[in-house]
Amino acid sequence: MDQSALVDLISKKVLEQINSKKSVIPIGVSARHVHLCREDVDKIFGKGYELTPIKELMGGQYAAKETVTIVGTKLRPIENVRVLGPIRERTQVEVSKTDAVRLGLNPPVKPSGDLDNTAPITLVGPKGAISLDNGCIIAMRHIHMSSEDAREYGVKDKQIVKVRVSSDRGGILTNVLVRVHESYRLEMHIDTDEANALGIKCNDSVEILV
Amino acid sequence: MDQSALVDLISKKVLEQINSKKSVIPIGVSARHVHLCREDVDKIFGKGYELTPIKELMGGQYAAKETVTIVGTKLRPIENVRVLGPIRERTQVEVSKTDAVRLGLNPPVKPSGDLDNTAPITLVGPKGAISLDNGCIIAMRHIHMSSEDAREYGVKDKQIVKVRVSSDRGGILTNVLVRVHESYRLEMHIDTDEANALGIKCNDSVEILV
Repeated sequence: MDQSALVDLISKKVLEQINSKKSVIPIGVSARHVHLCREDVDKIFGKGYELTPIKELMGGQYAAKETVTIVGTKLRPIENVRVLGPIRERTQVEVSKTDAVRLGLNPPVKPSGDLDNTAPITLVGPKGAISLDNGCIIAMRHIHMSSEDAREYGVKDKQIVKVRVSSDRGGILTNVLVRVHESYRLEMHIDTDEANALGIKCNDSVEILV
Repeated sequence: MDQSALVDLISKKVLEQINSKKSVIPIGVSARHVHLCREDVDKIFGKGYELTPIKELMGGQYAAKETVTIVGTKLRPIENVRVLGPIRERTQVEVSKTDAVRLGLNPPVKPSGDLDNTAPITLVGPKGAISLDNGCIIAMRHIHMSSEDAREYGVKDKQIVKVRVSSDRGGILTNVLVRVHESYRLEMHIDTDEANALGIKCNDSVEILV
């Protein structure tokens, strides 16, 4: 290849990269975790107990030092389930379908916060246990983005989009929820089943198809 | 709706069903399992031991009564891993990526039987244990079909196709291997991660896209 052809090729590749940049969404894989309300923190960690942040997440959330054990109908525990802070209005447990099978539960696939008609679950902490009639979900895969990102993609909060996964186990995923908020940074959240089945991991990228 | 419109609607629906019939592939979900060679059966179940079939599978294979415990680099065992018969030329352990993470292994995604450069694993049976340098894979998703089915779809053995999954967590899966043999009945095999991530289970259907 002569020098001129090489320059053309490099220019073409660089332009391709620039033009495709904005359709690329980094992946964050969510392992099973728990959000707690004030009352439930009191019950399982002790009255007035404050969670200890150890890692900052987007939107003012954080991973806490604290973990709980969760138990379902099969009475097989899953230990060391991370608590996420800060405290929420309602306690919510997010598991994968693989976890759910192990627990003996059949939680629905739902967006975070939508807890009506979800699965019952028991949480055990160092100072007590709580058994919830509702609260366990499989989180619906979703893309967090800022309002600016949303304008660039031409999408709105709660819109359903598709993404292309270009791994060896990839394809196109439908029913991906868009969640827009100023405090969000661009990231698609999938659970461990989705990451493992699709052959992708944290910081890999997918392409949004609007 | 008058009677004539109703007849038209029913005819249309029936024709749609007939025309789409052949693109519909039933799903079989493969949980973790083990194929054993004669020498390894001898080592872990005893010299000359014969496996006990309890459930017939396609292609002359069967699920055996026997199970083993598998152990990886983390020394965390997974118990009750089903043995499939009959005996094969080489021992092969098929796990999901979720299993692999738990075991501390990084097996490649490969078609069954392709065991070069695969992950090491230990198998424990009632009469002994074996530690293999190779033999653990994540099975590449594939569609079994007869030669007649292959002719109807216009595909060949080892061809790569796509499938459409129409569940709430669905989409289109690429890199699906076609495996043709007279003894096969039409069925797409996926592992538990893929089934859980895509919201499908045994006897659900997908659509082949050639």
